[in-house]
Amino acid sequence: MEPALHPDLEPVRWLLGTWSGEGRGEYPTIETFDYLETISFTHVGKPFLAYQQRTSSPEGLPMHAEVGYLRCPGGGDQVEWIVAHPTGISEVAAGTVDGGSLALRSTSIVGTPSAKDVSAVERDLVVDGDVLRYELRMAAVGEALQHHLAATLRRSDG
Amino acid sequence: MEPALHPDLEPVRWLLGTWSGEGRGEYPTIETFDYLETISFTHVGKPFLAYQQRTSSPEGLPMHAEVGYLRCPGGGDQVEWIVAHPTGISEVAAGTVDGGSLALRSTSIVGTPSAKDVSAVERDLVVDGDVLRYELRMAAVGEALQHHLAATLRRSDG
Repeated sequence: MEPALHPDLEPVRWLLGTWSGEGRGEYPTIETFDYLETISFTHVGKPFLAYQQRTSSPEGLPMHAEVGYLRCPGGGDQVEWIVAHPTGISEVAAGTVDGGSLALRSTSIVGTPSAKDVSAVERDLVVDGDVLRYELRMAAVGEALQHHLAATLRRSDG
Repeated sequence: MEPALHPDLEPVRWLLGTWSGEGRGEYPTIETFDYLETISFTHVGKPFLAYQQRTSSPEGLPMHAEVGYLRCPGGGDQVEWIVAHPTGISEVAAGTVDGGSLALRSTSIVGTPSAKDVSAVERDLVVDGDVLRYELRMAAVGEALQHHLAATLRRSDG
């Protein structure tokens, strides 16, 4: 039986599900690239959403992935975000939820010795009906915080 | 088609698979508890293993979960570990691999505002054939680094 959503998560209930679509990435140090993406937000009845993300090239080769959790302590408008990147980066962010919008700003980025230097990540995410759009800004490898990723995904399950 | 394992990951190839079994947790601030656990290490052909873990009570109720990645840059004996906890904790660790043993020591623990205070985590993991055993030590909520978790899991797939 599907557990009931923890009441803390009511403000972000609209994130639940699996979302698939396409995005584009750009940064001064790399060539612009297109990608396919699937993300999911799931829950087990406890006060967190589990987040999983995978991107692939338009030809289907795996590119990025990331996993983590979203918390919304007390069910208010403050959100916590804890994400691990396979590139060796750990991202912790604080954010706010406002209707169907989520704004996350990194409060700590820690990298392993082999990770690229990333110093800040900002994510803005909006859901309108069955469409999820996000933009991600990043400060990395000595470059100032700037646009890096944008994608439009559609809900691919209930 | 299953992609080939990235050569960096040869030293930790023995982690690949899904492992299930039972563990016991103890800490001065809580009652000792038993748990069921399933962990998996998977790969997509890139230079990281994806790690997923879930525990439940002996009655099957979800307890802890954690997700992240393991890197072994250059395929040597140095390992990097990036894990997100749904309790709001981000764990980054450095480690060494020696045959079928892995020793991980946290280098950074960052918590969100609602997370419990955890200051250090040490993990020792050994695989012998189809049996995986681990022990986890933790310094948290003002207590010194000490034994917290031990489990014995068996490979439940290929």
